[in-house]
Amino acid sequence: MFHSFDQLCEAVVPSKKELLDVAQNHLNNLTKPVGSLGRLEEFAAKLFTIYGGTFPLEVDPALHVLAAGDHGVVAEGVAQNPQEVTHLMILNILGGGAGISVLSRQSKMDMVLLDAGHKGACPDDVRAKRINDLEETGNISKEDAMTAELCEKLLLAGANTVYEGVQKGYNIFSIGEMGIGNTTPATALFAELFGLDPKEITGPGAGLCRERVIHKAGIIAKALERHKKAHPNADVLHILASLGGFEIAALCGVVLGAAALKKPVIIDGFISTSSYAVAYCMNNAVKDYAFLSHASAEPGYQKIMDCLGEKPMLDLSMRLGEGTGASLALQLLRSSKAVYNEMATFADAKIDTETYLPK
Amino acid sequence: MFHSFDQLCEAVVPSKKELLDVAQNHLNNLTKPVGSLGRLEEFAAKLFTIYGGTFPLEVDPALHVLAAGDHGVVAEGVAQNPQEVTHLMILNILGGGAGISVLSRQSKMDMVLLDAGHKGACPDDVRAKRINDLEETGNISKEDAMTAELCEKLLLAGANTVYEGVQKGYNIFSIGEMGIGNTTPATALFAELFGLDPKEITGPGAGLCRERVIHKAGIIAKALERHKKAHPNADVLHILASLGGFEIAALCGVVLGAAALKKPVIIDGFISTSSYAVAYCMNNAVKDYAFLSHASAEPGYQKIMDCLGEKPMLDLSMRLGEGTGASLALQLLRSSKAVYNEMATFADAKIDTETYLPK
Repeated sequence: MFHSFDQLCEAVVPSKKELLDVAQNHLNNLTKPVGSLGRLEEFAAKLFTIYGGTFPLEVDPALHVLAAGDHGVVAEGVAQNPQEVTHLMILNILGGGAGISVLSRQSKMDMVLLDAGHKGACPDDVRAKRINDLEETGNISKEDAMTAELCEKLLLAGANTVYEGVQKGYNIFSIGEMGIGNTTPATALFAELFGLDPKEITGPGAGLCRERVIHKAGIIAKALERHKKAHPNADVLHILASLGGFEIAALCGVVLGAAALKKPVIIDGFISTSSYAVAYCMNNAVKDYAFLSHASAEPGYQKIMDCLGEKPMLDLSMRLGEGTGASLALQLLRSSKAVYNEMATFADAKIDTETYLPK
Repeated sequence: MFHSFDQLCEAVVPSKKELLDVAQNHLNNLTKPVGSLGRLEEFAAKLFTIYGGTFPLEVDPALHVLAAGDHGVVAEGVAQNPQEVTHLMILNILGGGAGISVLSRQSKMDMVLLDAGHKGACPDDVRAKRINDLEETGNISKEDAMTAELCEKLLLAGANTVYEGVQKGYNIFSIGEMGIGNTTPATALFAELFGLDPKEITGPGAGLCRERVIHKAGIIAKALERHKKAHPNADVLHILASLGGFEIAALCGVVLGAAALKKPVIIDGFISTSSYAVAYCMNNAVKDYAFLSHASAEPGYQKIMDCLGEKPMLDLSMRLGEGTGASLALQLLRSSKAVYNEMATFADAKIDTETYLPK
């Protein structure tokens, strides 16, 4: 179990880079032109390194952690939908009708829902767990989203969800979210962590018109100004507490927990990526354990990828969240694993590499 | 059964575009922001249209058609590997050790191998079928690859493989290939069909160095010059016979056959795309039935996509062929299908669309 933020953060150490060479050497001996399976080879080598060099690779079973929360900042008119939709969608997710319900079934991922604090009762469902009694964050344009103490508590709840998952035998994790208005805190976090201009990276979220995107960017700028005045020398934990969201904090904990326990973690879209970005700024070594599943259609996404030095696995113009992109990425990782484990070598196929392979 | 090229080509008719609106209307009522599942929605709507508007959608079972052949033009030094590797890889594919063997198992696709004419005996395997006794095509820099009669025979063999597959209950098809040297005829076909300069679209294939890529582009230019002199007013079938390959012709027939029988067909990488491009130039309506699975790492690929008006589903820097990219695309189509069939509507989730959806 993780008992403090410091303990969690220190438990994340880089993966063993020398294993990448072992993996690449294995991949180069498989019956295909060197490198011709492209990023499937990159993913397989990363999985091999994360799992510490065991063969054959195994990624399953998979546990998807979906965190939900409500946001005080929706009072500023930054969201397309009213706040009640968070609760209705939590019911829909557990009821089996949401995008992630369908795609997690299709991708054979189990799911746990962390109710990180929203307006409504936590559903009575074995898969749902309330980890915070508050109904919404503070309105970040006027006040901190939460206290540092609550932020640490949510981080630990996320990390310990992974801890318990590993005890149960889960071998790979993914993150996704639901929370009306949560592109606003996510954008504020990206802007503060990477020094980006909110005017350049604020997007329509669930479908705002152009005028309302401009209004939203103004609210984010106001939140950043307030934050800088209130916390002139904030560390990353305090930036998250000041500008983040309950579900964003819990998922940041999932990323740190997976990395600390040396399990791969698949990051979904824009908001999940903000959780990853916060974790990355807390400890860069999380990068060694993370797979960024898909390019969000939000306009700031490419700039953020440049800051993180990442190229997402898929680009399908998706912007739903919940973990829908992560479910597709899991299928690619399973295919990468199969290539690594099952392809014949040149020796198996009696193809003479001395003669035939490029020098 | 298809008995002639003309009959096959005329059997391909456009899908019913009005069904796209029916599909989009259904997708817009599912519990997600409109359009937020991006290309998964595009794929689902296309599948719905191809299958003629039946609900629920079903894509399985899937049959992968892999065609293999040898190429006389390898005598010109255009390939990284010696010609014997075609035969060794056919054995490896059927033996279960090749990339497509692994990935078709992982993606739960059945496979049939069309031996379209190569140097070696057709393996004694229930999945393999020899459809041409010749050992290699003519060297296209000096002579036609094959006669128009043989070309038509190979097209029909491909199309009738789909016909028989449909009789057995297969609901979706994919194409892939194996043939040492086959990026050379594929590139020649793209250049001739779309008026592209071989210097700009010739690439390293399995791994040629820069000098040998320049040599290969010169051989392709020579083949194009020969072709234009020998057949100044060639129709598409005669272009394929003059510059193509046995496996390329057979797979062109698979594309036409699937479209004629109103089944989706997933196109793999560079060489499979040349089969698709030939079919597209024979009858543009094949576009309504085809899914271009992944961007090839070959340098000419983007120009060719521009000519075809296509954007591939995946971009993973793959350049193996065999159908490896198609196997990944099938997983995306299954996810698209699941979204279409299983997501709840706003009414199901008691979310009031009048208030909540963007106008």
